[in-house]
Amino acid sequence: MQAHASRQPRTLFLDTHDVARLIGILGLPACLRGLVDTLRADYLRWPEFDKEARIAAYTAQGTIELMPITDGTHYSFKCVNGHPGNGRYGLPTVMAMGALLDCDTGMIRLLSELTLSTALRTAAMSALAAQVLARRDSHSMALIGNGAQSDFQALAFACLLGVRDLRLYDVDRSASERLARNLAAAELPGRALSVRICESTAQAVRGADIVTTVTAFQGQTRVLDDSLVEPGMHLNAVGGDCPGKTELDPDILRRADVFVEFPPQTRKEGEVQQMAADFPVTELWRVLAGDAPGRARADQVTLFDSVGFALEDYSALRFLQAQAQARQVGTWVDVTPGQADPRDLYGWLQGELQGLAALAL
Amino acid sequence: MQAHASRQPRTLFLDTHDVARLIGILGLPACLRGLVDTLRADYLRWPEFDKEARIAAYTAQGTIELMPITDGTHYSFKCVNGHPGNGRYGLPTVMAMGALLDCDTGMIRLLSELTLSTALRTAAMSALAAQVLARRDSHSMALIGNGAQSDFQALAFACLLGVRDLRLYDVDRSASERLARNLAAAELPGRALSVRICESTAQAVRGADIVTTVTAFQGQTRVLDDSLVEPGMHLNAVGGDCPGKTELDPDILRRADVFVEFPPQTRKEGEVQQMAADFPVTELWRVLAGDAPGRARADQVTLFDSVGFALEDYSALRFLQAQAQARQVGTWVDVTPGQADPRDLYGWLQGELQGLAALAL
Ligand SMILES: NC(=O)c1ccc[n+]([C@@H]2O[C@H](COP(=O)([O-])OP(=O)(O)OC[C@H]3O[C@@H](n4cnc5c(N)ncnc54)[C@H](O)[C@@H]3O)[C@@H](O)[C@H]2O)c1
Ligand SMILES: NC(=O)c1ccc[n+]([C@@H]2O[C@H](COP(=O)([O-])OP(=O)(O)OC[C@H]3O[C@@H](n4cnc5c(N)ncnc54)[C@H](O)[C@@H]3O)[C@@H](O)[C@H]2O)c1
Repeated sequence: MQAHASRQPRTLFLDTHDVARLIGILGLPACLRGLVDTLRADYLRWPEFDKEARIAAYTAQGTIELMPITDGTHYSFKCVNGHPGNGRYGLPTVMAMGALLDCDTGMIRLLSELTLSTALRTAAMSALAAQVLARRDSHSMALIGNGAQSDFQALAFACLLGVRDLRLYDVDRSASERLARNLAAAELPGRALSVRICESTAQAVRGADIVTTVTAFQGQTRVLDDSLVEPGMHLNAVGGDCPGKTELDPDILRRADVFVEFPPQTRKEGEVQQMAADFPVTELWRVLAGDAPGRARADQVTLFDSVGFALEDYSALRFLQAQAQARQVGTWVDVTPGQADPRDLYGWLQGELQGLAALAL
Repeated sequence: MQAHASRQPRTLFLDTHDVARLIGILGLPACLRGLVDTLRADYLRWPEFDKEARIAAYTAQGTIELMPITDGTHYSFKCVNGHPGNGRYGLPTVMAMGALLDCDTGMIRLLSELTLSTALRTAAMSALAAQVLARRDSHSMALIGNGAQSDFQALAFACLLGVRDLRLYDVDRSASERLARNLAAAELPGRALSVRICESTAQAVRGADIVTTVTAFQGQTRVLDDSLVEPGMHLNAVGGDCPGKTELDPDILRRADVFVEFPPQTRKEGEVQQMAADFPVTELWRVLAGDAPGRARADQVTLFDSVGFALEDYSALRFLQAQAQARQVGTWVDVTPGQADPRDLYGWLQGELQGLAALAL
C-alpha cells in the first residue's frame, strides 16, 4: 500500500482486530443490543429488499456461500464458509468477509472481516426471534453444541432475554469446559449466570425454557429428539444450515410452530428441508411487524429454524460502518483507482508507474 | 490494523497500487501474455469448473454483480459494477474487487482490487478469442468506444495479434483524443502503431480486419449496423454485457458465427439476448480445445460475444496471487481471527481486548 492521490475514492477496511476493538469500545452487551435494534429496524423494512437465497458451492469438506442483498440504496454481500472438519487444520469452522457498496455508483464503501460479526449477528438474530417467540418468563436455556458460536449465543440470551441458568452439552466435553470457563469470567450486567455442564442432551434439555442447538456436523443428525421437547419450550435451531445438514428430529417440526427468515432459502437449508415443500412456516418479519402471531399460548412449542440470511449481514455491515466511522476505527484502503478522468484508467496506471520509477531513483 | 498473533491465518491483500506495481514490474505486454496463457490453460480445464451465470442486482443507475466459480480446489468470486453514468460523480463506469479461497478449508487466501485486473483480463480474453477467430493476416482494428477499457484492448491487440493500424471512434471526441494520446506515448515492442481518430463508426470500420465495440450505454443501441460489416471481419463485442444492454444490430448475429463464454450467462446478457433461446452459438473453450472449428474461411464473419465470465476472474486472481507472492508485492492482513483453539473465538476476542487495554495503560 502506498500514499494515495487526493482524488482516490477510498474504502474503509475493518480487519478482525478493528472489529474486536469496536466490540471493546462499545462493550459486548451494547454491541448485541445495537445489533438487535439494527436487525429489527431492517427486518421491518423487509418488503424494500431485493432478496434471494444465497449461492453456495458444496464440496466434500464443506460449503462456501455468497449472500447478496440490496434495498436499492446499499448493496451488501458476505462470503462465508462452513467446514466442520477445520479443527484438524487449527482453523475455525466458520470464517467470513463482506462488503457494502453504494447502489448509485457501485463504489465499495466498506470491506470487512465478518467472522466475529457473524457470531454476533447470529446470536443477536436468535435473541430477536426469542423476544417474540419464547415465553416471557424464560430463564433457563440448554445450549447443545459448545463451539465458536456458543459463547455469543449464551451471552446474547443472558443480556437480552434474561436467561441466567445455562446447561451445556457437547459431544466433546472439553468444548463445554472451554465455554463454561469463558462464561464464568464474563462480566455481565445484573444477576450472575449459573452454568452447568451436562452429561447428555436429555439432561441439559429437561425443564429448560429455551433450547439452542448450534452443533457442526456434516450430515443429518438428531441432536434433539422429539421425546425431549416439552410443552412451552422455544427451540432456537442454529446449526442446521445447508442441504443435507439438520439437527432436529422431524417429529419436532410437526409439533412446533416454525418461524423462518426467508422461506425460499430455509426450505433448502433449514430443518424444514426434511418436510414437504408446502409445510407451513411463518416469516419472522411478519411477527416483528405485528402481521402474524408469534407465541400465542404458554404451552406452545415454537421453533426458530435459523439458517442465516443476507439481510442480517447487511445489518451487521451497516452497524459496523456507522460505529467505525463514529469512532475512527479501521484503515482507508484503495481498492479503486483514482484517475481524475474516470475514463483514463490507463493514464492513472502510467502515473503510478512513473511515481514508482521516481521512488526507485 | 495491528501486530498479529503468531497463529493468525493471514490473507494477502492487493490494493490498486499493488496491482499497478505488479504490472510495472512485469511490463504490460508480459502481463497480458501471462494472462492469455493463464486464461487458455484454465479454459482448457473447462469441464473441471462448477459454473453458473453471475448473480446481478439491477438498479436504475447500473448493475452490481457477483461472479463465483470453483474447480473444487480453489474458489473465487468477483464483485463488479457497471454504471455508465458514473462519470458525473468522477467515478469509473466499472469497479471491482474479489477474493480467492481454499475449498478444503474456506480460508480466504487473497483479497484484491479487480478494477485494473478486469481491464487486463477482458483485453486478454478478447485477444485469446481473436487468436482463433480473426484472420491470421489481421493488422487493422476499429475501436468503437474509447473509455477505460479501450486502451487495454488496443494494447492487447497490438502486442498479441500484430494489430498496428487502429481507427478510433467515440461519440465523445475527447475520449478518442485521450486514447490516442496514451497510445502515442505507449512503448510497444516491434513496429509503431498508426492511430487515427474517425468521425463516425462507418469511417472507423471500413476495411478493418477486426472491429472491437466497447461502449457503455444503458439500453439497446446499434453501435454497429449490419451494413458496415464486411466479409472476413472478426467482431469483438465487449460492451453489451447485461440484460437490455446490447451494441449490435441483430442482423449481424444472423450473418456471423457466434462464439461465447458460458451460454447460460451469454443468452441473458450478451448480444444473443436479442435472438431465440436456441440460436446457435459455439462455446469458445471447445475451439481452444480443438473440439469445434474457429474460423474456417477467410470470408466468414466471426463474432466473440463477450460478457465477461467468472472463470476469467479466477484466472486473473490466480495469476495475481502467483506474481505477487513471487515478487513480494502486497500486504498481509487479518480477516480471520487467530484463536489457538479454533472453537475459542470468544477467548481470542478477550485476548485482543486485554491487549488493547494494556496498550491504553
Ligand atoms: N444459522 C446461522 O445463522 C448460523 C451462523 C453461524 C454458524 N452456523 C452454524 O452453526 C454451527 C456451529 O458453528 P460453530 O462455529 O460454533 O462450529 P464449531 O465447530 O466451532 O462448534 C461446533 C460444536 O458442535 C459440537 N457437536 C457436533 N455434533 C454434536 C452433537 N451431536 N451434539 C452436541 N454437540 C455436537 C462439536 O463438538 C463442536 O464443539 C455450524 O454448523 C454453522 O454452520 C449457523
Ligand atoms: N465483456 C466484458 O468482459 C466486459 C468487461 C469490462 C467492461 N465491459 C463493458 O464495456 C463497456 C465499456 O466499459 P468502460 O469501462 O470502457 O466504460 P467507459 O464509460 O469508461 O467508456 C465507454 C465509452 O463509450 C462511449 N460511447 C457510448 N456510446 C457510444 C456509441 N454509441 N458509440 C461510440 N462510443 C460510445 C462513451 O462516450 C465512453 O467514452 C461497459 O459497458 C462495460 O460494462 C465488458
